[in-house]
Amino acid sequence: MFFTCEKNILQEAINIVQKATSSKTTYPILEGILIRAVDNKVYLTATDLDIGIETFIDANVIRTGSIVLNSKLFGEFIRMLPNDTVSIELLENNFVKITCQKSEFTILGNNPDEFPKLPAINENSLYEIPQDILRLMIKQTIFAIAQDETRPILTGVLFEVKDNMLSFVALDGYRLSLKRIEIENSNNISAVIPGKTLNEISKIIEPSEEKVKITFTPNHILFNLGNTKVISRLLDGEFVNYRQIIPQEHKLKVKANKELLLDSIERASLLAREGKTNLIKFNIGDNRIVITSDSQYGKVQEEVPVELEGNNLKIAFNSKYFLDVLRIIDSEEIYLEFTTNISPCVIKKVDSDDYIYLVLPVRLIEN
Amino acid sequence: MFFTCEKNILQEAINIVQKATSSKTTYPILEGILIRAVDNKVYLTATDLDIGIETFIDANVIRTGSIVLNSKLFGEFIRMLPNDTVSIELLENNFVKITCQKSEFTILGNNPDEFPKLPAINENSLYEIPQDILRLMIKQTIFAIAQDETRPILTGVLFEVKDNMLSFVALDGYRLSLKRIEIENSNNISAVIPGKTLNEISKIIEPSEEKVKITFTPNHILFNLGNTKVISRLLDGEFVNYRQIIPQEHKLKVKANKELLLDSIERASLLAREGKTNLIKFNIGDNRIVITSDSQYGKVQEEVPVELEGNNLKIAFNSKYFLDVLRIIDSEEIYLEFTTNISPCVIKKVDSDDYIYLVLPVRLIEN
Repeated sequence: MFFTCEKNILQEAINIVQKATSSKTTYPILEGILIRAVDNKVYLTATDLDIGIETFIDANVIRTGSIVLNSKLFGEFIRMLPNDTVSIELLENNFVKITCQKSEFTILGNNPDEFPKLPAINENSLYEIPQDILRLMIKQTIFAIAQDETRPILTGVLFEVKDNMLSFVALDGYRLSLKRIEIENSNNISAVIPGKTLNEISKIIEPSEEKVKITFTPNHILFNLGNTKVISRLLDGEFVNYRQIIPQEHKLKVKANKELLLDSIERASLLAREGKTNLIKFNIGDNRIVITSDSQYGKVQEEVPVELEGNNLKIAFNSKYFLDVLRIIDSEEIYLEFTTNISPCVIKKVDSDDYIYLVLPVRLIEN
Repeated sequence: MFFTCEKNILQEAINIVQKATSSKTTYPILEGILIRAVDNKVYLTATDLDIGIETFIDANVIRTGSIVLNSKLFGEFIRMLPNDTVSIELLENNFVKITCQKSEFTILGNNPDEFPKLPAINENSLYEIPQDILRLMIKQTIFAIAQDETRPILTGVLFEVKDNMLSFVALDGYRLSLKRIEIENSNNISAVIPGKTLNEISKIIEPSEEKVKITFTPNHILFNLGNTKVISRLLDGEFVNYRQIIPQEHKLKVKANKELLLDSIERASLLAREGKTNLIKFNIGDNRIVITSDSQYGKVQEEVPVELEGNNLKIAFNSKYFLDVLRIIDSEEIYLEFTTNISPCVIKKVDSDDYIYLVLPVRLIEN
């Protein structure tokens, strides 16, 4: 193996595949990047056995071949090189010589035959989503996945296509986040993608309208971004029937400015956080929400002007579940829909029904 | 106590004094900020008993008085308020009510009489240093103080005035960093300022030519920055006689481009770091320095073109001690002066003698 390429291009490719490199592994080859030089292309591959990422760059390939190099050392050395042509040559006994200007780095590689193969996937059943939309769908749902592994299926996001509508759904037992878009001429599907995979995908995709092509097999998902492919296993099992959780009616509807509500809850949650409970109380009535929070250190009272339709209500929440949604919802004004102080609050955008959030209140002893 | 002031101005004052607040203390009042409202001024004071910081802001004082408020809660709440007038009022039983627009925060304060008094210092013996120069002097020496407490005096920086020359000196047994400037009509002095104090000072001072006034007492130093005063204890004991450590002669003088040398040593130290030894070797001759480093993972070779005067030399260093100085020395080109491979290397600026760095080599078994 012997090729030359531009430092910047190589570095960018390393950055992409490194997202799949295992850091905590007892299987050292997974700390490596598989490098394969073929006809004027160099492929880089990394995997932690859950996710695999493969990308390629154009290169001047003098001799084909392959090797596995430690991801951290290889990546850091390339990053620190000047912006110029880099030459990478496989020597004897798996040693690799990397040269650039007056720098020369010799590093011991690993046998490429020991590197795990990514699953071969036939890219025929395709969903196409613009990168910026996919990114938004991930951002607006992933924060609501379960953080603990008690119910593994809840550590993923449901990818559901039904009646030409694509929905992303995440829930953790305390709140639910649903984002949906129209998707034309697509087969129905229901699959659960690990949160970790979506996290890495959202770091790789660009805020552009270029489309990501997505293929499913019974156990895997493949994201094709052109030069880069990401393959991940899917989560086993049935997702919660989320439709029956979302209330269809309400007794109180509040229209609020998102920023005002966010700032007020942030200040109120300062004390709620110190008190370890994150508890904030809403007193809704008189065209305002009065938000209060107290702890041994003191108390906060905030007032947010709102428009009301319905009965007055006193209700309490974990402030974190409110802050999470107010930080990602893409609407200046939002609706909050309530029924009683022990039933879920539904949060929606005023100008669109493409996003729904549901959060359970905290039941207070005084209730 | 009752006053109103602008949120931004109050927040800036809190940011300044918070640098002296104790975070790990068994004496809770040190986690607080003493607030004193007097005639149209509000003073804020914090101390961890080693350093004390006091600053004042202009305010509309309706009722004089004082209280101690928890630094973190008070600071965070003020930070999160909108940019508007804040009103702060002491109620009964040490409760304080902070209001701004529709936000109201009630926090329990502490008795101001329990707050430790800062030492009273008569500001008569003054040294005056422009803030930007003081900042540079700190930056170019503080990294070389000892990190462990075996010899406490070495955890400080020597402040020495002699023959109208002010020197800052730090050393840790492996290297020495000396920065000096001319200072007119000043009394001779020799005092050791804790590294921590200088660290905090350099965060407070601005990159401006405005002067800091410095007063010493036998045990304390006071920095007067106008609205803000910083008082710190000095370190006890005699500093090392650093003059006799700096070699006056050399057998090999190398002129090098700082950036090229820095980049090369950074790449070489990548492997040196993995090998835990930080060892890099210089082979100096033929108008170049060849820098090599190796570990079980591979080896790096770097070549830096230089101008030479004197004999060829092979010498080894801890790369950290070289990187530290190359990152802060303010000169495009530098001199490296060597005698033997077991005597110190001296690094100077080509265009000025206001900075001297000395580093001991690592003695290799093959030497």
